[in-house]
Amino acid sequence: MGQWSLFLQPYKQAVDELKIKLKGIRSQYELEDVHTPVEFITGRVKPLASIYDKTLEREMVFEPSEQLAEEIQDIAGLRIMCQFVDDIATIVATLRKRNDLEVIEERDYISHKKPSGYRSYHIIIKYPVQTIHGEVTILAEIQIRTLAMNFWASIEHSLNYKYEGELPTEISHRLERAAEAAFRLDEEMSLIRDEVKDAQMYFSAFKET
Amino acid sequence: MGQWSLFLQPYKQAVDELKIKLKGIRSQYELEDVHTPVEFITGRVKPLASIYDKTLEREMVFEPSEQLAEEIQDIAGLRIMCQFVDDIATIVATLRKRNDLEVIEERDYISHKKPSGYRSYHIIIKYPVQTIHGEVTILAEIQIRTLAMNFWASIEHSLNYKYEGELPTEISHRLERAAEAAFRLDEEMSLIRDEVKDAQMYFSAFKET
Amino acid sequence: MGQWSLFLQPYKQAVDELKIKLKGIRSQYELEDVHTPVEFITGRVKPLASIYDKTLEREMVFEPSEQLAEEIQDIAGLRIMCQFVDDIATIVATLRKRNDLEVIEERDYISHKKPSGYRSYHIIIKYPVQTIHGEVTILAEIQIRTLAMNFWASIEHSLNYKYEGELPTEISHRLERAAEAAFRLDEEMSLIRDEVKDAQMYFSAFKET
Amino acid sequence: MGQWSLFLQPYKQAVDELKIKLKGIRSQYELEDVHTPVEFITGRVKPLASIYDKTLEREMVFEPSEQLAEEIQDIAGLRIMCQFVDDIATIVATLRKRNDLEVIEERDYISHKKPSGYRSYHIIIKYPVQTIHGEVTILAEIQIRTLAMNFWASIEHSLNYKYEGELPTEISHRLERAAEAAFRLDEEMSLIRDEVKDAQMYFSAFKET
Repeated sequence: MGQWSLFLQPYKQAVDELKIKLKGIRSQYELEDVHTPVEFITGRVKPLASIYDKTLEREMVFEPSEQLAEEIQDIAGLRIMCQFVDDIATIVATLRKRNDLEVIEERDYISHKKPSGYRSYHIIIKYPVQTIHGEVTILAEIQIRTLAMNFWASIEHSLNYKYEGELPTEISHRLERAAEAAFRLDEEMSLIRDEVKDAQMYFSAFKET
Repeated sequence: MGQWSLFLQPYKQAVDELKIKLKGIRSQYELEDVHTPVEFITGRVKPLASIYDKTLEREMVFEPSEQLAEEIQDIAGLRIMCQFVDDIATIVATLRKRNDLEVIEERDYISHKKPSGYRSYHIIIKYPVQTIHGEVTILAEIQIRTLAMNFWASIEHSLNYKYEGELPTEISHRLERAAEAAFRLDEEMSLIRDEVKDAQMYFSAFKET
Repeated sequence: MGQWSLFLQPYKQAVDELKIKLKGIRSQYELEDVHTPVEFITGRVKPLASIYDKTLEREMVFEPSEQLAEEIQDIAGLRIMCQFVDDIATIVATLRKRNDLEVIEERDYISHKKPSGYRSYHIIIKYPVQTIHGEVTILAEIQIRTLAMNFWASIEHSLNYKYEGELPTEISHRLERAAEAAFRLDEEMSLIRDEVKDAQMYFSAFKET
Repeated sequence: MGQWSLFLQPYKQAVDELKIKLKGIRSQYELEDVHTPVEFITGRVKPLASIYDKTLEREMVFEPSEQLAEEIQDIAGLRIMCQFVDDIATIVATLRKRNDLEVIEERDYISHKKPSGYRSYHIIIKYPVQTIHGEVTILAEIQIRTLAMNFWASIEHSLNYKYEGELPTEISHRLERAAEAAFRLDEEMSLIRDEVKDAQMYFSAFKET
């Protein structure tokens, strides 16, 4: 356990730093009185139990190692929630331009949603952490999604866990209908998006006077 | 300004305390491995500009006073977000039983949604705050809603601000359709609610072993 | 372990609430532009390992029970640090007047310091916590001390742990000299206390203009 | 005011990030069961009123500018408090090795204390902040001191403010005696430092088993 704590420490540090940095994006947009693409941020270090499951799945040895650090890319995980689907592209563009991290992979499950109905945009980054023994570079995953996508995904996650990935047909159908309802909500929101963005600017400008 | 700071201090203190207390509800459910009705909590003291607008609207004098403290019931405001519509009743029942606050009014905008499409459950409470000069009892408002209700409400709020409550017909229509999509999502979610609640219990139990 | 988590939950909740409440005292003094007796606050739930040591020492059974809750009074522990020795009395008076807790015991290790050199003011309180199953009243300990007392105490704590309470004569002497130096610092500070209190008021008033 | 908010935003962001990073140093030492040189961290952005005073003192124009950013080096300020005088050198060495900041100046007011009795170690760093418009490099000041140095410094600061730097002889004498008492405490603590460091290691090791 001591070895795992030491191994996971830079990941914990990275999650703490990245949360502060991503929240900073939100603050800057607010200060400039424009619509902010960032609604809220969450972050976590993958629990040991989930790392263990992953090693089983991939037939790897369950011990802290360089190989494990390379293969399991979401040990440090951040999630950015936005109001509108279009905000996702804005955030991705902002992340690509930063000098304190390097985007090494992108997976677009929005243009190409998973068969389950899962929608989200995933980015894998390299991130350098300064430790008391020098610099360590780790991988981290940033997931970007709308509130509706996030809502649905948390439900699906629980159900998959219960049925170990083998959903009964009936439940699978209901989950699909919920995915459609979530998608529909995102669509309707997109239609009033420009109106709302205007309104938010007006709203902020008004506050300042 | 100094007078307003002193007047608002117990409200700020109440918001800080109530946030910790409501978050405690969430922690307790999690610890007992049952579905938690509380998804997340936010809180704020009403900004002075909004208090000012309210005094204009109600033709009151804009100054710290007992009358103002009685008439503007949401100077201290808390919001509880839940996954499912049914969770709202669970939370209300829990709040009614607490000894550290007194529920003095309830407004059910879920059974009776507002013409705009607004849905939410509002509770007004009396809450005693201990100050360095003795006990002060203040009023606070707690709003309880699903994630979908909350999403829609934040959009409507921005638009109403822009148009000062007079939405153009076209925008009003779009907002209605978004309200329907949000309602639909809540309905679909309710249909798989029991499955998900089971799954969450299973999920937590599994984690423990 | 599950049983202990459930048993300790109201203590954790109490520590969280009391930290917010005691920090509120500090904010109020600052707002009123007078010297604040509260420098900073810390809090913790007693670690299980320390609870275990205590049960050994007192020949009690190590299991969650009412008896244990009554005998070990510092399962929930808060610490208030102040700048000046005189601030301690101010804080004690403020705590005695609160309606959300009941002071049931006071131990004055400042007028009567322990043979080791330990100085601090201890208060035992009864504190009601609202849980999802109703109200639970717990005991908590609040320690009040100056920064110098706190500094010395943390050093003594480490040393006692190492030597299991049996300090070698040489180390015991050095610790005594450090206690004297800490006491001396408190004395010198007391002598300029009124000057500084004035200065702080002036300082704050100046800021406001 | 809007211009100042925009100008100060990267400084605020830097303070938030550096607090998380410096706290990380503490966590790492704790995890490795060795004495941590970092006791606690504070940080702040210099208030506008203090920036204004500084511009008066240096006969500069009070407006956001590159010149101001270069001349006032402590707009972003961090403070690291330690238990022992020797810890200061350890922290300085750690900071010099980091790749996410550049130390550009050091002022050692410990070997060379100020005439007032002020002791502290100051470091000026260059720190790159990622904004939504690209990278901005700012200056920040990190002050490193023992708890006793910090205690004395906060008292001196209040008094100097009150008397605008012209302390009456009597008060000046008292302040000197307090500085001596603080120095004395640091000396006594240094003498038991190795004992305590051992004890802390033992203490942590013991906890782990």
